[in-house]
Order: sequence, then structure tokens, then C-alpha cells
Amino acid sequence: MQKRVTGPEIERLIQLLARVPGLGPRSARRAALHLIKKKDQLMGPLGLAMNEAFDKVRICSTCGNADTSDPCTVCTDPTRDQSVIIVVEDVADLWALERAAAMNAGYHVLGGTLSPLDGIGPDDLSIAGLVDRVAKGEVREILIAVNATVEGQTTAHYITEQLSGFDIKVTRLAHGVPVGGELDYLDEGTLAAAIRARTAF
Amino acid sequence: MQKRVTGPEIERLIQLLARVPGLGPRSARRAALHLIKKKDQLMGPLGLAMNEAFDKVRICSTCGNADTSDPCTVCTDPTRDQSVIIVVEDVADLWALERAAAMNAGYHVLGGTLSPLDGIGPDDLSIAGLVDRVAKGEVREILIAVNATVEGQTTAHYITEQLSGFDIKVTRLAHGVPVGGELDYLDEGTLAAAIRARTAF
Repeated sequence: MQKRVTGPEIERLIQLLARVPGLGPRSARRAALHLIKKKDQLMGPLGLAMNEAFDKVRICSTCGNADTSDPCTVCTDPTRDQSVIIVVEDVADLWALERAAAMNAGYHVLGGTLSPLDGIGPDDLSIAGLVDRVAKGEVREILIAVNATVEGQTTAHYITEQLSGFDIKVTRLAHGVPVGGELDYLDEGTLAAAIRARTAF
Repeated sequence: MQKRVTGPEIERLIQLLARVPGLGPRSARRAALHLIKKKDQLMGPLGLAMNEAFDKVRICSTCGNADTSDPCTVCTDPTRDQSVIIVVEDVADLWALERAAAMNAGYHVLGGTLSPLDGIGPDDLSIAGLVDRVAKGEVREILIAVNATVEGQTTAHYITEQLSGFDIKVTRLAHGVPVGGELDYLDEGTLAAAIRARTAF
């Protein structure tokens, strides 16, 4: 039988850390010990940062981004071309696309994908909100940047249908070989898509 | 150029999370988004737990364990045989050995290993404290459970010398094949040690 070796406050910190994605029970213990070692430099500031984020975090009522202001940093950025809206499944996808820094546009976070088996229908996603934004008449392009999964593609088709009445361009991400990818590790579907969409040198 | 997509409080949370061992910059973003999603169930409680641990954490002045009381849970446990002291490099090793639940003894955390190249000498480790504990006359065995590295073994030898004047047993962990380990993946040193220390069926 395993006995307690430390105080309940530290045990509780470990239990909660173990629920953070990327940390399991073992890493949570290592993380807790590191936090204890770096008490003043890391544990204190991280605890305060977490409390502050807890108090201030807001989900943008326009696009669904996670921020500390509503409307969010992206929606209020005057240098962005908000007539183009990139539609993503999740806030993580918004942040990932922004790291690519390839497009200076607005965003719309769906909050998931259509998945009848899991009981997720159009009303569970922020699709009506997207249609409302388009209906205001200031949008000229919707880039549907959902995952290349069955659910993602189903969702993309559904959104395309919902937007068919508007005079806007609806686009999607290109399929192809990932940059740095090796051909013989890629699946046939990706290779076929890359061949079909081949471009001139 | 990458633009800001979220508030400074969330950015700061991500930066601090990235310094937790086990999380890099990418996992820190994922962790932050998960914390935002599970705001009430995880972010709030974790922030509070971190603040509470920050206020209450103590390093045991007897053994060096990390706890919220001094003397710690291990040192004050009346069911432990404190006449046997297991000497470890780090608090993480103490916790790991306790998970094995193989011995119901006291502990002593050195806080590292001797490493002349890094300028770590005997005074930088809790070796004098160990000798003091032994000098009180209530210890009958010291199990030196340091890592099987050059630094660990050097430290073990140094401690053995320091304890040579006392009438106590000084022991060390057995070398051998890890449980569940496959022979052809093990190094020659481990295999040779396992053969030399072979036991009867």
C-alpha cells in the first residue's frame, strides 16, 4: 500500500496538473516538483496568471475566438481585411493559421464539426452566426478551413449550402503534399490530390 | 509577421505554461485552450491550488522532502522505521521509491550529486545534515539510492567514507535486469552485474 509522502495541497496540485493535456500523472509530479523548485520564478507567477486569465477570459461574441476582450483582438484589428472570413473548427485552428501569417483576414470559429452520431447538429455550431455576418453584406469571401476529415468536409458542404444564396466567393484550403513531407509516407488520397492540382514550375 | 490574436493575459499564461517541464510552446497553447474550455472545472481550481501550494510549500529541514509541513509527512510518520534512512538525490526519487512501496523507512534528500566540473561540492549537498542525523545514534542502516551514473556513484562513495566512523550498515540498490526488460536491449554492464548477482530459483 502506498503511503502519503507530501501534503494535501501538493497532492491536489499534482492531481489537477495531471488533467492538463500534455501532462499525465507522472509528468504532473515532475511538473509539480519543478514548480516547487522554481517557486518564486514560476509557481507564483503561473498561479497569478491563471487567476487573472480565469477572471478575464471571454469568448468573442462575433467570431468565437478566446480572448480577454469582446469583441476580440482579431475582430477589432483595423488592419485586417474583415471582408474575408476564415472559418475554422476550433480556436486552436485560428491560432495555428495565424502562425502561418499567410492571410490578414477575419475569422469565425464553429466550435466543432457536424457529427450526427455524437448528436452534434447545425444548432450546436456557430453556423447561424456565420450566416448573419455574411448577411450584413460586407463579406466577399469565406475560406472554409476545416480539418480534412469526413466530419470536417461534411460541415464544409453544409456551410456552402447555407451560403449559396449570397453573392460571395466560398473557398477551401488546397490539398497537397505537406511542406517537408516525403512522398512515400503519404497516403494515396493526398498524392492523387497533389497530382490533380499540380502547378507549373 | 505574426500578429496578436488574443489578449495579453492569455499570452502570458501560455508563456508561463511553456516553461513547465513536459509542455513546450505548442503544448502550452493547447493546454491554455483546454484550460479556457474547462474554465470552471480546471482553470479556476488549478489557479487556486497553485496559489495555495505557493503559500504553503516547505522544504523539510530534516530530510529535504517537499511538503506543506516541516517536519514533513515522511519524517513525522510514526509507522515508519526511521532507523533506516534511504538517501536519494532528489525529491522526485523519494516519491518514486515510495510508489514502489517496498520499504517503510525514513529518507534523506541530498539535493543533487557531487560534480566538480559544475562546481558542486559536498557543501552544496545535504551531506553534513545526513551525518548529523546518523550521529544522533538512532540510525542502523543507510541505503544509498542514488542514480547509477558516474556522479551518483562518486557521491555514494563520498557518503560511505563520511559514514565510515559509525557502527551502521551502509547499503546500496541492487543492479540487475529491470522487471519486464528484454535482455538484448540491455547494456553489457547491466547484464554483467545481473549475472554476477544471480540468485537461486
